[in-house]
Amino acid sequence: MKLRTLTTAIAMTVASGGLVAVSALDNTAQAQETFEWKLVTSWPKNFPGVGQGPERLARLVDEMSDGRLTIEVFGAGQLVPGFEVFDAVSEGTAEMGHSASYYWKGKAPAAQFFAAVPFGMNAQEMNAWLHYGGGLELWNELYDPFGVDVLTAGASGVQMGGWYNKEITSVDDLDGLKMRMPGLGGEVMQRMGVAIVNMPGGEIFTSLQSGAIDATEWIGPYNDLAFGLHQAADYYYYPGWHEPTVMFEAIINEEAYAALPADLQAILRTAVRDVNQDVLDEYTARNNDALETLINEHGVELRRLPDDVLAQAKEHSADVVAELAEESELATRIHDSYRAFQDKVVNYHTISEQAYYNARNPDASTD
Amino acid sequence: MKLRTLTTAIAMTVASGGLVAVSALDNTAQAQETFEWKLVTSWPKNFPGVGQGPERLARLVDEMSDGRLTIEVFGAGQLVPGFEVFDAVSEGTAEMGHSASYYWKGKAPAAQFFAAVPFGMNAQEMNAWLHYGGGLELWNELYDPFGVDVLTAGASGVQMGGWYNKEITSVDDLDGLKMRMPGLGGEVMQRMGVAIVNMPGGEIFTSLQSGAIDATEWIGPYNDLAFGLHQAADYYYYPGWHEPTVMFEAIINEEAYAALPADLQAILRTAVRDVNQDVLDEYTARNNDALETLINEHGVELRRLPDDVLAQAKEHSADVVAELAEESELATRIHDSYRAFQDKVVNYHTISEQAYYNARNPDASTD
Repeated sequence: MKLRTLTTAIAMTVASGGLVAVSALDNTAQAQETFEWKLVTSWPKNFPGVGQGPERLARLVDEMSDGRLTIEVFGAGQLVPGFEVFDAVSEGTAEMGHSASYYWKGKAPAAQFFAAVPFGMNAQEMNAWLHYGGGLELWNELYDPFGVDVLTAGASGVQMGGWYNKEITSVDDLDGLKMRMPGLGGEVMQRMGVAIVNMPGGEIFTSLQSGAIDATEWIGPYNDLAFGLHQAADYYYYPGWHEPTVMFEAIINEEAYAALPADLQAILRTAVRDVNQDVLDEYTARNNDALETLINEHGVELRRLPDDVLAQAKEHSADVVAELAEESELATRIHDSYRAFQDKVVNYHTISEQAYYNARNPDASTD
Repeated sequence: MKLRTLTTAIAMTVASGGLVAVSALDNTAQAQETFEWKLVTSWPKNFPGVGQGPERLARLVDEMSDGRLTIEVFGAGQLVPGFEVFDAVSEGTAEMGHSASYYWKGKAPAAQFFAAVPFGMNAQEMNAWLHYGGGLELWNELYDPFGVDVLTAGASGVQMGGWYNKEITSVDDLDGLKMRMPGLGGEVMQRMGVAIVNMPGGEIFTSLQSGAIDATEWIGPYNDLAFGLHQAADYYYYPGWHEPTVMFEAIINEEAYAALPADLQAILRTAVRDVNQDVLDEYTARNNDALETLINEHGVELRRLPDDVLAQAKEHSADVVAELAEESELATRIHDSYRAFQDKVVNYHTISEQAYYNARNPDASTD
């Protein structure tokens, strides 16, 4: 994987410079050690929003390391399929991956806590838990048996509730509806009478247009507009209670990471942290424009999910999350840490972020 | 300022290695060029929260550059007073500063748009505007005549509304009240009958306790608890309509930045972006704990500002911000960009972040 030039074999005669010259020789050896990494993703190459994160990461690392660490980014299917990113990094086929942890629930169900929890924490809250509440340490403990390190690497923000080809006026309207909604949100919907259909992103548009499904969630206005979902369904529901954010992940093969000198390790970690915020910044900015386009140019009907749907979804979400917590001893610890942090941050955000949104825009406070 | 070792003067005889050895020689010259920077701040050294940002910045840059760029952090008054940080960076006394742009309103009134705008954008929205809405380019244009580059370097999140030594039940209770509230928020309060008193942070506690002032705002639970403000006033009001966040700034002397090689420039920029998120993460986490302590251990009375206070503050805020926009041609452009972005992001956050907060915690939606 790694190309290390044999600078230690270069014989040099230092004619002057004393200590400085010795340190120059040391630095030369390190400066010449270069690393060429592969990064596999679960997104099509250059996908809008989340797909820009790994491209930015590669650019930053190249600039900061002056070319000593280069990262080649592969879209889903270019080196390995999108859902085999974790295995590829675990086995060392690629040194890095960019994905979302809920895809690995088959290997480690508790991984879902780090991607999206129905009625859980939003991006600002997740970042605080991960970096100052012990969340990132637990996430790394979960991936440790696979030889994989993890950092958080982007957030979508609160997502949309989904596209429906009929109006939903109460929970009764959900009964028998065929919907594409993966993960914990899908489990909640199933308990409310929805028939959950799983399919990859690429099949959503055709299935919705043909009537094979009646509804789907995807991401938010920016990605949904790019997918053309407004051409296949009339009603666009909010809020995305099932995904108060998705946190994306940067996963790193432990051995490859350990082989990097300390400065390149720091460069890699810091670049990922930059990307972690940058992806959310881009989504926040682009979703605004896309929402305007959807409403003004495409006549999309925005609807809030009815109170009884939200109330029942909240109850079932508590059950689904509590069941997930029973899955293993580590899952229980992750759940307890997550829940304790959420309880506290909700208390604080009730009087800060939430109270501010409602003071700035009181008409929407019960909307 | 800069210590550059004279590696170019070192004569070397390369005995083997061909092209690799030549490039090793080039890298040696660059690796040996070291820079020792000073960073001055407007905060006491190691101040909780915001004061941790520059310390983290220095640590990250040192690690990533393998010691080629080191940054010594000075607290307010250690090298220059806290309110002379901008001049010090502009004149090159220090290569960098960490502060908040509203302190420079005497030099450039429009700088206030980049720190805190009453009823303006919160941290998530400001970051999106700065990085994907043209905000950062305008900020740099504003500082360009001073030879100063700027990056955003931390956020407080929505602040608290302030400490009051009596209960506020309507806007009439504000009449004649002596309050410490700087910036645009203070101007708004003045139009609501409050007598605004200016004083540095260090004098707040004593003034509030002695009755020299009746009320003050400071930051949020974490910093307010550390200051002991709960010992000087009984009522803690929310939300902080006057400061939906403060964005902190990293300012850099343009010539010092231009003298860095490209890799160190990238390292510096990326480290600042890491700090930008990390400060908000720390505030989000620590404010929760501090709020619990204030309520449970110190019996602080939390109160929401009355509807009529919020409604009138919102009206006056619009006037104050519109007047600021008239100050110069550039101020008008900054205002127009800010306002256009806020209008769009409020539309989107009404159905995403705000709607989600209210669905998760409906009891507080009109609180």
